[in-house]
Formats: sequence, structure tokens, C-alpha cells
Amino acid sequence: MENFNFYSPTEFVFGKNRETECGALVKKYGGTKVLLHYGSGSAIRSGLLERVKKSLDEQGIAYVELGGVQPNPRDTKIYEGIELCRKEGVDFILSVGGGSCIDSSKGIALGVPYDGDFWDFYGTGKTVEKALPIGTVLTIAAAGSEGSGASVVTKEDGMLKRDVGSDNLRPRFSVLNPELTCTLPAYQTACGATDIMAHVFERYFTNTKEVEITDRLCEAVLLTMIKETPRVIADPNNYEARANIMWAGTVAHNDIVGVGRSQDWNSHGLEHELSGLYDCAHGAGLAVVMPAWMEYVMHHDVMRFAQMAVRVWGCEMNFENPEATAKEGIAAFRKFLASIGMPINFEQLGAKEEDIPKLVEVLGIGDGIRGGFMELNAQDVTNIYKLAVDATI
Amino acid sequence: MENFNFYSPTEFVFGKNRETECGALVKKYGGTKVLLHYGSGSAIRSGLLERVKKSLDEQGIAYVELGGVQPNPRDTKIYEGIELCRKEGVDFILSVGGGSCIDSSKGIALGVPYDGDFWDFYGTGKTVEKALPIGTVLTIAAAGSEGSGASVVTKEDGMLKRDVGSDNLRPRFSVLNPELTCTLPAYQTACGATDIMAHVFERYFTNTKEVEITDRLCEAVLLTMIKETPRVIADPNNYEARANIMWAGTVAHNDIVGVGRSQDWNSHGLEHELSGLYDCAHGAGLAVVMPAWMEYVMHHDVMRFAQMAVRVWGCEMNFENPEATAKEGIAAFRKFLASIGMPINFEQLGAKEEDIPKLVEVLGIGDGIRGGFMELNAQDVTNIYKLAVDATI
Repeated sequence: MENFNFYSPTEFVFGKNRETECGALVKKYGGTKVLLHYGSGSAIRSGLLERVKKSLDEQGIAYVELGGVQPNPRDTKIYEGIELCRKEGVDFILSVGGGSCIDSSKGIALGVPYDGDFWDFYGTGKTVEKALPIGTVLTIAAAGSEGSGASVVTKEDGMLKRDVGSDNLRPRFSVLNPELTCTLPAYQTACGATDIMAHVFERYFTNTKEVEITDRLCEAVLLTMIKETPRVIADPNNYEARANIMWAGTVAHNDIVGVGRSQDWNSHGLEHELSGLYDCAHGAGLAVVMPAWMEYVMHHDVMRFAQMAVRVWGCEMNFENPEATAKEGIAAFRKFLASIGMPINFEQLGAKEEDIPKLVEVLGIGDGIRGGFMELNAQDVTNIYKLAVDATI
Repeated sequence: MENFNFYSPTEFVFGKNRETECGALVKKYGGTKVLLHYGSGSAIRSGLLERVKKSLDEQGIAYVELGGVQPNPRDTKIYEGIELCRKEGVDFILSVGGGSCIDSSKGIALGVPYDGDFWDFYGTGKTVEKALPIGTVLTIAAAGSEGSGASVVTKEDGMLKRDVGSDNLRPRFSVLNPELTCTLPAYQTACGATDIMAHVFERYFTNTKEVEITDRLCEAVLLTMIKETPRVIADPNNYEARANIMWAGTVAHNDIVGVGRSQDWNSHGLEHELSGLYDCAHGAGLAVVMPAWMEYVMHHDVMRFAQMAVRVWGCEMNFENPEATAKEGIAAFRKFLASIGMPINFEQLGAKEEDIPKLVEVLGIGDGIRGGFMELNAQDVTNIYKLAVDATI
């Protein structure tokens, strides 16, 4: 096991009606003037935003509002938020929405105290020294941003999708009420589930040996998703299944299942270019690219893929031919994705084979190499995209 | 799933040589004058204490020392610590040792700012409003106290073992260096492993339905312990196995595997009276009492025990007779405990059948009922102790 630090100080406030505690939570964590940051109309239509405002009012906490965060959140909205926060003297950001909204909030949070362009931190590894405190009310189980220090933002000029990570960006509190996710369309639910599983797989495929505890924890989350996702697709109001998925989504990405081991993240990198170019849902892009990545890198460590097949997908080990077992596991993953309504190839996603050179170019590795489970150069990446073009179950 | 709050703000600093960062960590978390609290001679003999002091010296942090914490830590040492801290103006407690040392530190931490007897908090449910901040350098994977808000202390007068729990008692940081556990005798290692598994089982046996995510996370920790414990018993210097066990021990008890569900804790309650009376190791007491508890309560939910048998112990499900599978799982647990050198009955523990009435009396339930997975009255508890008297594999 590799040396690591694990620090997940977020207070998770989980269950029915917990959004009514927002005001008290903001007060507990020192907020006096809040930016209420949210996305499109659903938080308004559902009455959620009103409940959150009422909770702030009850604690005498002032707030200003900034809505309109898009999926794949944009830099332009963040500039707007930074200006508003500075003008209004905001000292706490309350994010009501999904991963996009939280990621946008994190961009604003690090931008407000920074004397320069907030974009300086994205894709550069520049250290976040200071950020406004954040709280979240999560409305979709997917990105894991409610418990992570990560933020992914798209720069409109060139549609570049880049990320930043820092413990200073971890939310002070996150309200997780599974009921809020019951109204999600099946497609969004499935995209979220795919993202959650992808967060685990990015950690599962490691070159670090003998990390049984994190292997097993990864498998625990995956097994849960395999059981619960079809249940919510069949019955959107199944609270218990929604609750299991919601907590799985947080556990999948606060790094408790990934510490002490090398991780991959190449599927996320490859997907970011897809959603950057086509503005598709992140989970949908992952459903197309991740099984293709698995097929391509499988030979780097066949036994690890066989382990996934047996322990996660319940395949029987073929002791004479572990490669067959490994392939069976990958096929089971793709079949699962199709069964919950995810696209599994370029056509279903709305992507085009002729764009592959462009995707590879924007990825920006040139003749170089991307690290991870298996090192990939531009040709490898091209091959992976190509495997995704015509994939079938 | 039940509503819950999950809050585990401790920074875990895991891996080789990490104890050299103690001074910087104390400084980071605001400590200026430290109580260095430790147990018997092993931290001195191994040179660990010197390394920790050097690290404090390098950061210019003053400290006073209080050693001599016993296993099953005593109230008397805590009174001594409280007085010393007040006299010396200590503002941070650094605990170098195992669970007993950390639990003693927590007693001191809550006692220093409290205007009364620290014992008021133990076994009473009284809320801990304030406590000195704590850091730990863990030397045995067992109690999980390095990540929890719990403390168990024995009152010498009457040998009463009682506990307290509060988020205010969670350590600010915990240094986990698996190398420090390589010198532990096999018996202590096995006691620690048993305690870790017991912390999971106390959460696993629940009356809350459909909590797949925490079921699976529990099973992940248990499967890890079943694989790794025999490896360290066979080869005490196996770093990877030690590392897996150490992280499993923390995950087992910071409640990430137990949220959203009712929990049991009756085996811990029954054990506390054993170690209180005989001063045996907590893990050894658990090895004797927990399988007996399982046998006694099994019929309350046979399918849950069958699930344990199949998913944790790899038993084949007997679909015609689930009870047989459940029994097979419990037998596998007891056999595992014996295989790692744990006592499995009263004689091996040094306990006496004729003391059972006394054990039940001190437990203090009278004619009442203890809650948990299955409610137990004094007769039930007597029966469980009796099942443990002559247990064999």
C-alpha cells in the first residue's frame, strides 16, 4: 500500500426532509451572507428552493441568488458569481443542485479570494490556498462532488473541460435527501449511476499490489449499484434504492475506496473531450468510452479484470482461460449499461467517428504519454475511441 | 435507510515514517503545549517516543509527559492527566499508543475544560460540549478509537467499564504507520483483529431493511480481515497485510460502514463485564462472547445470518435449510478465531461459570431489557454467557 492522507471533513446530513436544516448548518459553519447557487428550473418547480430559503430566513441569514448553472458548468457563470459575491460581501456559498452546480460553486469559492483569473487553477495543478466555505443540497446522485475536493469546469472559448482538486474545496456540509432524486428522469438517473460506477472503476484499476481493503470497498459500492440501479429505473419512487445509490455515490468519490493505490482516470479524461465537444451527459459519455478503455487495456493485467468479472459481475472463473473471464466481465458491464438505458457506442451518443482526430488533438497529449493504469499515447487513445464507435452488446 | 449524520473530520496520515510529521500536525491543528500521553514501555523501547519528541522539538512545541496507561484504561490515570494539563496549561493531547491510550486521552480531553467529575459523562449519555483537541500515533490496529468519537474507561472502584461518545472527541489527526504494529506479539495482533471484526458485526446485525450499501461495506472489511489476519500471524513483518488491517480497523469504526441502520453492540456490552472482571484483553473477551451471542440470537433473523455465512465465510447456501447455513457461518467464525489463537470458551479466557450471576448483575439490566438486534433480558444474557462456557470448534 502506498502512503496516503485521507481527509473528508464534510458533515453529511442524510435523509428525508434534511434540507430544512440548511439555515442552521450555514450558521454552524460560520456563514452570515450566502450565495444561493442553483441550476435550471427544477429546484424552483419542485419547491426545494423555497424550502431552503425559508430555512435561511428562519436563521436570519441573508442571501443573494445566482441560478442558471448549465450541465457541464461554464466559466462564464463562474465569473458572474465571483463578481456578485465580491460586490455583495458573500461569505458562504450554498449550492442547490447536482454536480455541475457544486463544481460551479467551487470555482466561485476559489475565485472570490484570489487576486487573478480563477481559471489559473484548472488543469494546471496550481494549489488552492484559500476558498469560501461551501455547503450543498444535492439533487442527483452522480458526481460525488458533494464529498470531494474536485471541480470540473468547461471554458466556453474552445469548450475546454478542465479540473482542479483541493481539500480546501471540500464542502463543510452536504445535505443528501434521496427523496429529491425521485423526480429525476430515468436517463439522468442512469447517467448518474454510470458516473458513480466509473468513479469506482477509475480507482479499482491500479498497479498497486495487495490493496485488498480498497479492492473490497470498491467492489462493495459496485455490487450495490448493480443491485439498486435497475430497481430505481423500474420504480423511480423506491426510496430505499434511491438512498442506497445516493450514499454509494458519496462513498465512491470521497476517496475512501481509493486511498493507498495508484489510480487511472483516463476514461474520465477521454470522456471530458466527448462531453466538451458534443455537450452530452458525462455519464453517457462514460458509458461509451469506459468499456472500450477496458477492452483496450485488459492485457496490461488480465487477472485484475478477471477479479472484476468474478467478484463484481458474478462470472465464473475460467481457470484455463482467465482472459475469457476478463472479457466476460467487460461484456457484462456493457450489457448492464445498455439495460439501464445508456448509450454504448458513438452513434447512440451522437458522436462521430470522423471527429476522433479532433478529440485526440484537444486531449492535448501530442506524441506524449498519459499515465494511469496503462500508459497511453495518442495512437492508443485513438484506438480506444475507435473501439467505442461500433460497440454492441 | 434511516436518517443519519456522518461526520469524520479526522485527518488520517497513513504509511511508513509518518510519525515524523507529528510536530507539524500538532502545529497545523493549533497545539502549542502538548500532553504526550502513552502506555507502557514499548513506545519507549522501540524508539517511537523519541522520534515523536524530536518531531515536536523541531517545531518548537513544548510538551509534558504522562505514561503508564494500562490496557482497559483507568479513571485514576485520567484524574492525574486532567490535573497535569490544568497545571501546565496544556492545549493539545498527543496520544502515542493503542486504543486504551487514545481512550484515556479522550477522558482527559473532556475532563480538562469541565467543571466537575469527568466520570459524569461515562455511561450516562451526558453531552460533551467541549474537549481539548487530540492527535494520535497509533501502535495497534484494533479499537478504531483513532477515528471515532468513542472512549471506554474502567472505574477502578468496582471495576465498572463505561463509555462515552461525541464528535467533539474525534481526533484532529491520526498517524497510522503499519510498521509500528509489526513488533506486536501474535496474541495482541489477533485480539486487535477480533475487535475490528466485532466492530463490523455490531453494525452488520441490524433490524433496518434494505441497507445494501452498508451491508456490502461491512462485508468488504470482514473479507479483508479474513484474508489478511492469518498472513500477519504467519509473518508478523508482512507490511502489506499489516497495512490492510490497519486501514480496515479505522474504516470498521469511524461508522462509514454503519450509518443509516440500527446497530447492536450487545456483544461489546457483554464483553466489557468480562474484561472488567478478569482484566482480559477486550478482543479475547469478544472472541468468547460474540459467537455465543450469534448462536443465541440467530433465530431472530436467520436469513441475515445465512447472508453472513454465504457472503463473508464463503459457505454454500442451503436453500432447503437456511438455518443450517446460518449455523455453518457462525461455526466458521469461531473456527477462524481459534485458528488465529483466540480463546473461544470460558476456560481458555480464564473466566468462571460460577461468576455468571455476578457478570449479569454488574451489567445492571435487572429485570429490564437491553435493546439492539434482539432485545435481551437478564435471563437471555445469562444464557449467552452459558453458551460461551464450553464452546468448541
